[in-house]
Amino acid sequence: MPKISEKGQMMPESPIRKLVPYAEKAKKSGVKVYHLNIGQPDIPTPQNMIDAMHNLDVKVIEYSHSAGILSYREKLCSYYAKHNINIEPDDIIIGAGASEAILFAVQTCLKPGDEIIVPEPFYANYNGFAISAGVKVKPIISSIEDGFALPPIADFEKAITPKTKAIMICNPNNPTGYLYSKEELEVLREIVQKYDLFLFSDEVYREFCYDGHKHFSVMNLDGLENNVVLFDSVSKRYSACGIRIGAMVSKNKDVMKTALKFAQARLSPPSLGQFAAEAAVDTPDEYFEEVINEYKARRDTVVGALNKIPGVVCPNPKGAFYVNPRLPIDDCDVFCQWLLEDFNYENQTIMFAPATGFYSTPGAGKDEVRISYVLNVEDLKKAMKCLEEALKVYPGRK
Amino acid sequence: MPKISEKGQMMPESPIRKLVPYAEKAKKSGVKVYHLNIGQPDIPTPQNMIDAMHNLDVKVIEYSHSAGILSYREKLCSYYAKHNINIEPDDIIIGAGASEAILFAVQTCLKPGDEIIVPEPFYANYNGFAISAGVKVKPIISSIEDGFALPPIADFEKAITPKTKAIMICNPNNPTGYLYSKEELEVLREIVQKYDLFLFSDEVYREFCYDGHKHFSVMNLDGLENNVVLFDSVSKRYSACGIRIGAMVSKNKDVMKTALKFAQARLSPPSLGQFAAEAAVDTPDEYFEEVINEYKARRDTVVGALNKIPGVVCPNPKGAFYVNPRLPIDDCDVFCQWLLEDFNYENQTIMFAPATGFYSTPGAGKDEVRISYVLNVEDLKKAMKCLEEALKVYPGRK
Repeated sequence: MPKISEKGQMMPESPIRKLVPYAEKAKKSGVKVYHLNIGQPDIPTPQNMIDAMHNLDVKVIEYSHSAGILSYREKLCSYYAKHNINIEPDDIIIGAGASEAILFAVQTCLKPGDEIIVPEPFYANYNGFAISAGVKVKPIISSIEDGFALPPIADFEKAITPKTKAIMICNPNNPTGYLYSKEELEVLREIVQKYDLFLFSDEVYREFCYDGHKHFSVMNLDGLENNVVLFDSVSKRYSACGIRIGAMVSKNKDVMKTALKFAQARLSPPSLGQFAAEAAVDTPDEYFEEVINEYKARRDTVVGALNKIPGVVCPNPKGAFYVNPRLPIDDCDVFCQWLLEDFNYENQTIMFAPATGFYSTPGAGKDEVRISYVLNVEDLKKAMKCLEEALKVYPGRK
Repeated sequence: MPKISEKGQMMPESPIRKLVPYAEKAKKSGVKVYHLNIGQPDIPTPQNMIDAMHNLDVKVIEYSHSAGILSYREKLCSYYAKHNINIEPDDIIIGAGASEAILFAVQTCLKPGDEIIVPEPFYANYNGFAISAGVKVKPIISSIEDGFALPPIADFEKAITPKTKAIMICNPNNPTGYLYSKEELEVLREIVQKYDLFLFSDEVYREFCYDGHKHFSVMNLDGLENNVVLFDSVSKRYSACGIRIGAMVSKNKDVMKTALKFAQARLSPPSLGQFAAEAAVDTPDEYFEEVINEYKARRDTVVGALNKIPGVVCPNPKGAFYVNPRLPIDDCDVFCQWLLEDFNYENQTIMFAPATGFYSTPGAGKDEVRISYVLNVEDLKKAMKCLEEALKVYPGRK
């Protein structure tokens, strides 16, 4: 029997998904599970996207251009213009989710063995993409004490080697919710220019900024036109995670020309999703106002409740829909599994993503969990009550 | 300005897409271009797939299971059972097209530097996938004189090294249309077993067999349950290339467990496409009877016309919707570009895919082109007339 490859063996299990069998078992035994492990919001997808499917008017569901349907890319330019990002259709390649777009960019800009610096905790799947592409993630710890702000520039400089080709950030951040300021990004610009690196920026949560804060895109860092590659997605913006429509955006013509070859090798991004995504660009501003108010209320609920639980520390993040609190526990992997296997409070329990999966430094994040506040306020209150009760009886409590 | 990677530099341009700018220029100058370069059929997508979108009844377009919606995978098992392939839902991972499924399998089974043997000419994008995964394609030439039959087993054996991990076939074949017989596949089985290799089989054209020939799947080769990985796709079967729903299928549990980690890293295959694909399984048999009759008529038109042109040799393939004739020309890349740039017959011309892109042996296929017979019989007749006239005046005629 032939064996799977060393590369396959290296591939990590998704921290977001690996506890799913335990959650299913809990549900089978009649326990209600609050799913705060995954960024799958309960917010309705805008009706205009659903209508685009109801009104689908094609005889053949054809391949699109490998970079995506031109009319969609043109419309996306108008979306970006509203956010003060000025680009042209040729600066965009549509991917099957931001996931595919990231893979195109990593393969275009880095060869196997090259290094990419990422502040951690970071979106867990970056590890998977790095293994796919054979590149090495060099983490720099952002500290919970600073609310997960950008680590000091000296830390970046220490991590740079001749193999360093890129820095990657996620803004607003998954899993911390941290929103990088214009000033922090300008600090980052210096090091990107000094070492002539690519700057990858995952901005899929652009709309989700709270307390009057505005998002500043790396696309607007002067002088980095050839360094910046932006990743974007329809999934979170329009609560349509299953649509698998994302994008890579860059003004670097060489990067886009080469990335297009990777895109051509898989022929086309999904057409049906693109039809819906094109309709999504017309989503009225009121939709976002409502959604952002809702997420803000959820964040306030979760952060407020967490900081009232003895031993829990949770910064109050300004963006996205995640928090990454520190809990008084020995091991988040054990704790999260225990919540599903051995605990319930009034027949309810909670599913979190263990934070260890969002770090690549061994041992880091062992007393943290990622919480996606993707349920309504009432459910979140109940979930936080569960957590409070769980921490009273968890055997591995510190 | 940071430079693209060596990997990016290695990525080939798609032979199917690279002439598109010339075709666009020809069209702008008023010349009608017959697109026989790409496997994008004009056959209508079954109405039940379109209806699935018209009747879409969801509030949130959610992530699906990373391996695909369970009800869809269950339904696919019934599809396979009809084709005498007996599998379970856990033997299937849905990909964004067969393209993604192939990448999952290659990364699961081969590490960078490993080798995969592929009879050539082969589907051009296998080259792209190999570069993505850092593996080496070792081609074995299948000869036009034998109608592109499976090369002698001795040729496979000569190509095997300690780094060989897999053999890959496409059946029916793209670009040759060749349909491997049960007997040929049994010969292949011997070598797969002897060297304990994976056998990858791309069977996306399973339905398209002509002249009473039946498709035999490698899934039914006894004793290879742990060696075989099947790739499949909705694109060609239901003339829905833009849907991006494919699959990898294997009974090897280790392979599926590891491939699922790659699938989890990108979270979910497209949900809208899966809804349509699930509906597609109910497509009535009459649809295929009609479509197969139509393709057979097209093949007969094209093969008949080709073999009447002096100097042209075209085997009569039993499957898929491609032929790969030899033409009396010096260089297919030059010829195909010349057709678009410098030739027209009664204001019409043809776009083919130069066959060089389907070979990885340098220089091979220089006097061949791939023709996709995806247009109706009348257009195909006109296109073949164009070719006949073109060969009379092409400066590089041999």
